[in-house]
Amino acid sequence: MTTLSISDARALAETAMTGAGHSEEDAAIIADHLLDCELRGLSFGGLARALSIIERVRAAPARPSPIRTVAETPVSATLDGGDQVGYVVASRALDLAIAKAGEHGIAVVGAHNTWYTGMFSYYLEKAAAAGLAGMIAGSGPAAVAPHGGTEGRFGTNPIAFGFPASPTPVIWDIGTSSVMYGEVMLKERLGEELLPGQAFDASGTPTVDPAAALEGAFTVWGGHKGSGLAMVVQLLGMLAGAAADPPGLSDCGFFVLLMDPAALTDATDYRQRVTRFADTLRATRPVEGGAAVRVPFDRSVARRAETLRRGTIEVADPVVKALLASGESRV
Amino acid sequence: MTTLSISDARALAETAMTGAGHSEEDAAIIADHLLDCELRGLSFGGLARALSIIERVRAAPARPSPIRTVAETPVSATLDGGDQVGYVVASRALDLAIAKAGEHGIAVVGAHNTWYTGMFSYYLEKAAAAGLAGMIAGSGPAAVAPHGGTEGRFGTNPIAFGFPASPTPVIWDIGTSSVMYGEVMLKERLGEELLPGQAFDASGTPTVDPAAALEGAFTVWGGHKGSGLAMVVQLLGMLAGAAADPPGLSDCGFFVLLMDPAALTDATDYRQRVTRFADTLRATRPVEGGAAVRVPFDRSVARRAETLRRGTIEVADPVVKALLASGESRV
Repeated sequence: MTTLSISDARALAETAMTGAGHSEEDAAIIADHLLDCELRGLSFGGLARALSIIERVRAAPARPSPIRTVAETPVSATLDGGDQVGYVVASRALDLAIAKAGEHGIAVVGAHNTWYTGMFSYYLEKAAAAGLAGMIAGSGPAAVAPHGGTEGRFGTNPIAFGFPASPTPVIWDIGTSSVMYGEVMLKERLGEELLPGQAFDASGTPTVDPAAALEGAFTVWGGHKGSGLAMVVQLLGMLAGAAADPPGLSDCGFFVLLMDPAALTDATDYRQRVTRFADTLRATRPVEGGAAVRVPFDRSVARRAETLRRGTIEVADPVVKALLASGESRV
Repeated sequence: MTTLSISDARALAETAMTGAGHSEEDAAIIADHLLDCELRGLSFGGLARALSIIERVRAAPARPSPIRTVAETPVSATLDGGDQVGYVVASRALDLAIAKAGEHGIAVVGAHNTWYTGMFSYYLEKAAAAGLAGMIAGSGPAAVAPHGGTEGRFGTNPIAFGFPASPTPVIWDIGTSSVMYGEVMLKERLGEELLPGQAFDASGTPTVDPAAALEGAFTVWGGHKGSGLAMVVQLLGMLAGAAADPPGLSDCGFFVLLMDPAALTDATDYRQRVTRFADTLRATRPVEGGAAVRVPFDRSVARRAETLRRGTIEVADPVVKALLASGESRV
């Protein structure tokens, strides 16, 4: 592992992203998201992801187009991402939703024709900082079988809700598959097996072989109830303009709803009530021998604070080497 | 069991509801919801529920107040239900949301100070008939422990999403607790046990005794992910004005978001894509020896069609007798 200061890691990510053809502004947007993953200990979505972005950009048949607004009302908009990376497209969608919800109380913005939208908690934390509650759902190409089925119909389809609270917002952010895409890819690379029940091969037979799972389908989280939620995310992604059955890995649907609590209730009082409710949750009597009840997002916030205090992150040597090389290759 | 024609059952419910002090119009709204439960084979929410409504109305310390709009913008509103029964309050909230979403593309309406809001699929089916997609979440007083905890913090907190499709909408409607309130009440009455893992008693010890569970807390569905969803519903209910910790059984929060797909995409094309996607789900290769993959709401629609063909429903004798008596007692 290589120890990098946070500012060096950020500079490395930004240089790699401008090297991949992004503007300085977009490179900063992407780097900020990747760094937040590193700060929160989610290294699979951190600097390593910059390499995947570079690969994807180089492999694309054409350069991405500018992001276009294809539908708009005072309280809604749909963006065609132009095959730009999702961090950039989702940031644009979020900014638009924040502006519209700030002005009119609520807003819904969809985006499609994009890929790698990252952690939804990242966006909902920004929305909460603007005083807004909201939901984000993101669909992807078929990789996950519905409950009772053995063929991919859903993406790994994350869904998240966020609520303003003090000092940190309450954010619930989950994937609706039994295993994450990146986890399967990593296990394939390391020669490790999946857990039983996590996947089917292409013939529909249960498998623990990651390579076979990538040719087949992952299972859905949460049985028939969870399967319905995965379906909901797919249908919200389609509402954002994503194809029902996109041909490749590059049409994710991104759906964001933001609400100013002031549209419905007293916003200051609401923030206080959410804060108190979160405290009440943390104070719930635990199960015998169990740890304290956790409120979603608490652990990420604690981990990030710890990393910031330390001031450095650890990044796998091959990732650092490849990023440095990609930066030089631009010159 | 007593066999009733559907129209007799409806008349019985309406008479009982006017007998309990509802207007003819409100009685018709409540009866329609209860009948839809009966048609769909969900008898615990059908005519038997009319008796619970009568009991609740008689036990209330004061007569309910008129429903009041306590906050409103062109795209949002919050209703104080005035302690009216939820079927009436939620119908009002839904009508308002349909009108606002129809005019502006999206709308969010909240309601509180109400009880018994019924099946959310009932409302989302009406929204879909108006061409709208949407979400409904409903919070209730603390009865369900968060994951890792043993004290009630959430209601049984249903959440539902609906999408227009042909010939019937796709509607996902779940409860976020491991067991339904009505199910625990019924098992208590019948002297049956709960399943292991469904509840804690008041001291926090796991229990299968329904009476002890009602004094303690039910468990949440779906482990830590499901617990987060239950929390989300509670926070949405609070956004609709419900208290974080209401003192009794009578402050449910009802939150509805409706969207005209035309605000984001081509509405006709969207309906066709949802319809095709639902067909693709049904056609998914099943697990070995398994039945066909089900799309949420299909089973309810089939069951309702079957009941309508038959033209009659079966209702427990004591329920019919009690409803007839309640109707007479009015005269």
